[in-house]
Amino acid sequence: MKEDQKLSPWKQKLHEIIYEADTPMGKLFDIILFIIIIFSVILIMLESVKAIDAEYHEILFILEWLVTIFFTIEYIARIICIKKPSNYIFSFYGIIDFLSTIPLYISYIFAGSQVLLAVRAFRLLRVFRILKLARFLGEASQLKRALKASRAKITVFLFAVLIASVMMGTLMYLVEGDEAGFTSIPTSIYWTIVTLTTVGYGDIAPITPQGQAIATIIMLLGYGIIAVPTGMVTAEFAKQGKDTSTLKNSGSYVHVNTQCCPTCTKEGHRDDATHCYNCGSLLNE
Amino acid sequence: MKEDQKLSPWKQKLHEIIYEADTPMGKLFDIILFIIIIFSVILIMLESVKAIDAEYHEILFILEWLVTIFFTIEYIARIICIKKPSNYIFSFYGIIDFLSTIPLYISYIFAGSQVLLAVRAFRLLRVFRILKLARFLGEASQLKRALKASRAKITVFLFAVLIASVMMGTLMYLVEGDEAGFTSIPTSIYWTIVTLTTVGYGDIAPITPQGQAIATIIMLLGYGIIAVPTGMVTAEFAKQGKDTSTLKNSGSYVHVNTQCCPTCTKEGHRDDATHCYNCGSLLNE
Amino acid sequence: MKEDQKLSPWKQKLHEIIYEADTPMGKLFDIILFIIIIFSVILIMLESVKAIDAEYHEILFILEWLVTIFFTIEYIARIICIKKPSNYIFSFYGIIDFLSTIPLYISYIFAGSQVLLAVRAFRLLRVFRILKLARFLGEASQLKRALKASRAKITVFLFAVLIASVMMGTLMYLVEGDEAGFTSIPTSIYWTIVTLTTVGYGDIAPITPQGQAIATIIMLLGYGIIAVPTGMVTAEFAKQGKDTSTLKNSGSYVHVNTQCCPTCTKEGHRDDATHCYNCGSLLNE
Amino acid sequence: MKEDQKLSPWKQKLHEIIYEADTPMGKLFDIILFIIIIFSVILIMLESVKAIDAEYHEILFILEWLVTIFFTIEYIARIICIKKPSNYIFSFYGIIDFLSTIPLYISYIFAGSQVLLAVRAFRLLRVFRILKLARFLGEASQLKRALKASRAKITVFLFAVLIASVMMGTLMYLVEGDEAGFTSIPTSIYWTIVTLTTVGYGDIAPITPQGQAIATIIMLLGYGIIAVPTGMVTAEFAKQGKDTSTLKNSGSYVHVNTQCCPTCTKEGHRDDATHCYNCGSLLNE
Repeated sequence: MKEDQKLSPWKQKLHEIIYEADTPMGKLFDIILFIIIIFSVILIMLESVKAIDAEYHEILFILEWLVTIFFTIEYIARIICIKKPSNYIFSFYGIIDFLSTIPLYISYIFAGSQVLLAVRAFRLLRVFRILKLARFLGEASQLKRALKASRAKITVFLFAVLIASVMMGTLMYLVEGDEAGFTSIPTSIYWTIVTLTTVGYGDIAPITPQGQAIATIIMLLGYGIIAVPTGMVTAEFAKQGKDTSTLKNSGSYVHVNTQCCPTCTKEGHRDDATHCYNCGSLLNE
Repeated sequence: MKEDQKLSPWKQKLHEIIYEADTPMGKLFDIILFIIIIFSVILIMLESVKAIDAEYHEILFILEWLVTIFFTIEYIARIICIKKPSNYIFSFYGIIDFLSTIPLYISYIFAGSQVLLAVRAFRLLRVFRILKLARFLGEASQLKRALKASRAKITVFLFAVLIASVMMGTLMYLVEGDEAGFTSIPTSIYWTIVTLTTVGYGDIAPITPQGQAIATIIMLLGYGIIAVPTGMVTAEFAKQGKDTSTLKNSGSYVHVNTQCCPTCTKEGHRDDATHCYNCGSLLNE
Repeated sequence: MKEDQKLSPWKQKLHEIIYEADTPMGKLFDIILFIIIIFSVILIMLESVKAIDAEYHEILFILEWLVTIFFTIEYIARIICIKKPSNYIFSFYGIIDFLSTIPLYISYIFAGSQVLLAVRAFRLLRVFRILKLARFLGEASQLKRALKASRAKITVFLFAVLIASVMMGTLMYLVEGDEAGFTSIPTSIYWTIVTLTTVGYGDIAPITPQGQAIATIIMLLGYGIIAVPTGMVTAEFAKQGKDTSTLKNSGSYVHVNTQCCPTCTKEGHRDDATHCYNCGSLLNE
Repeated sequence: MKEDQKLSPWKQKLHEIIYEADTPMGKLFDIILFIIIIFSVILIMLESVKAIDAEYHEILFILEWLVTIFFTIEYIARIICIKKPSNYIFSFYGIIDFLSTIPLYISYIFAGSQVLLAVRAFRLLRVFRILKLARFLGEASQLKRALKASRAKITVFLFAVLIASVMMGTLMYLVEGDEAGFTSIPTSIYWTIVTLTTVGYGDIAPITPQGQAIATIIMLLGYGIIAVPTGMVTAEFAKQGKDTSTLKNSGSYVHVNTQCCPTCTKEGHRDDATHCYNCGSLLNE
């Protein structure tokens, strides 16, 4: 098994720094990376502000290149120090990293490719990996489990909301005319959701008494049914709170670390693990 | 008893396909039906968009006729393969099906009858029947039970909200004048509900200091009392969660299927039922 | 003790009809009264709509007089058939009844007194007395108890919200100028509450980047802290649910009726009570 | 130990009045102080209203000076009657007190320093100290504990919301143009948060169908995920309710008073304490 062959020592070292966060160097790398990601996102924001872009175009352009070069190096390093590069390249983060690195290069070939820079915002999701460093790990996974457990209920709820929106929107289109802004059924449905979720922009608003009466019903409905997702998630949280304490008492929790399998990139290995629980290949010490 | 006479074999077969969802054919029919319903709703949406209707009027018209013919056939089939057609015709879905099929036919007699096409949006409710196919059944019924159990509390709450809206709306009408948009008491009440439910369109907004002060109170009230429906439904969910687990443990749950009584169209029969629990007539095997 | 002298039989009968709801006549009176109250409120609404008032002024004026005469008779009857009239006259409902009856009479003396008609909206609160007839009694009192138990927490919460609004509003006044609509600190505070409660009219909205940044913080704050009142009330409901079931099991609930003490007008007497639990005077049979 | 030397009797008396609230004089002082703070805040509000300031500038100016002199005396008194003045001067309230007293004095040197008057709004926070006088103490601390316990979860949640806002905002900037008001990415992110928190000003609103489709998703997301903080805090409240009752039964609660250590200004000492639990120095009797 090729995967069981260890990486050469310096690659192994690099893997530990880039992919893991248990060593001081690994932590440092993660923090620096996150700062640069935030910096790169702020850079895109500033470029989008016309007044700033007009004045500091030169500086922003140079900084953009610096960030792109850093990301390129990081991307190559990530590919080098993993046993099966395809595992990283076609992973969610691999694609995000690629898409947020490439735009500047291809901007000389395809005009408008700078649009891809927006993908960079997705890199912020890495914060969740870095959050793992701290005690937030448990909280985040509890959030995730609560949402997962309520998934079926939330789907039913969303279906009901969407159908109600389609029905109410169609009704409002018939009751109100073009005058009030209800120019088509899709627009009316958009308005219904704006109202039902209690957002209420006010760019479109009913003007006839009947329209206002229906709007009132939609509002009260929206005001009332927000209780449903809230109730579901709350009940889930309350239940999990109990489950967690039961589990903790029964001792079925083990300590996991941020070590990352050099073959399949899975995380969450036990502290005393020597083999990956997912692909079975050897872990770095 | 006429109802206990079995339908002729092919009608029985048709009944199984159209009304039930336990056989592969039944499932397929439900899914196809739902796709066509969604398609028909999208069709109405597109027709309502002026730009699209202007360009593709011909195509939309033909598609509209195709959908109408399909719905007509389905409607007739539903009447044929049931023992007591009146049970279907005067049921909620029967009326909806009729109203959403007829408009195109009578549009040659009564102008403006196309308005009835909007009824078609109600057909989307069938999704809940189709959801039964999946594990969502339990979730949906839990939602329904939670809402039902909180019904009395919700009624009291809605009464209180409406009375508060009438009182506050009247007050605002007296405090603010026509200038700010509070042209009549009904309009003021409409504004109060817009504010209380935190929708806040902004088409009408207080401009005098006193009016803004009252608006502030209404907002804080609305912000605070949303806790009431939420609290009620949540408590209900939490209670149900416990009840369900108790019930499940005590084994008083039986498995139900989507079989549908050919006489009275009731659903939710036990898997081993031979007679309808509602009207007592014989079920198909 | 004068209060222990029984009322004359016809007054006693009248008392039973007007103040109580245990006899068929009493129920009927309550329902008729409520219908007339709703009618009188709708009347005021219609009068406020200019178009309707212009056309039907005569009819509305006559109906207004009819309602006023009915209310006058009811007011006098209420005073006659009670042992201590002052108990009714200076009670909450007594004052409301008086204020909503008088305007038409004094409109010939003081112009603009018609404003008092708006008080009539308060009479709608009687619905809660009539709701007692039904099983809503328990629900309403549960709502009341839950709110009462959370009162101290809600006060602390409202104080915190108000102080935060004053601080944030002052800050926004300094950051944003007159241009964006933040013309004074009170206006800024009004805007802050509009934002914090997620109402968001949009008549005033920040335009400077700093202002928008602060607005973002206020919004997230408002979005987050709504969890606080919700959490409090929900926890209260959940607790009450348990308490109620415990109480019911321990049998410390007694059945109360809508009988009303003819001396002090207190309600909620036990079915087998002969003396008022509040003032000790004799109850009607 | 210098700190253990008692203050001279009159300073000790003053300390009791100013810093504590267990004696009638202490309570009175706290209430008077709070009234003057509220008065001073209202004063600033009135000054900011142009119409009022134009007419009553003289009176407002004099009242402003009176309040400033009172605050100056209070500030000096607070420094005098404490063993270690630096403990007060560099505490949160010490800095607030200083900043809200100084502006009028330095307004003769630096123009525009009146801006600092806004700091005065922070003094309102003292209400929480005064609330301690009443039974609100327990409630406030329960609120605080519930929020503290949910802190980690809330942080994760806020991070997720912010990242989603950055991603969605960038997307909307690309989809919608300058026309609809999405002039830059920061503005788009601001709009996203306005929408996600269901505030919905409507000053910026999508006009293209794609933009409205994305807006719909953001709204439903915002409408749904409000369940998350609510669920967390509610579960926390429910848990605390249980914990508190358990603690109360086990008798591990002791009665604390509002006595304030004259050395380190810590509060919450046991009724029978003779030494500060924080710095160990002698407490006043």
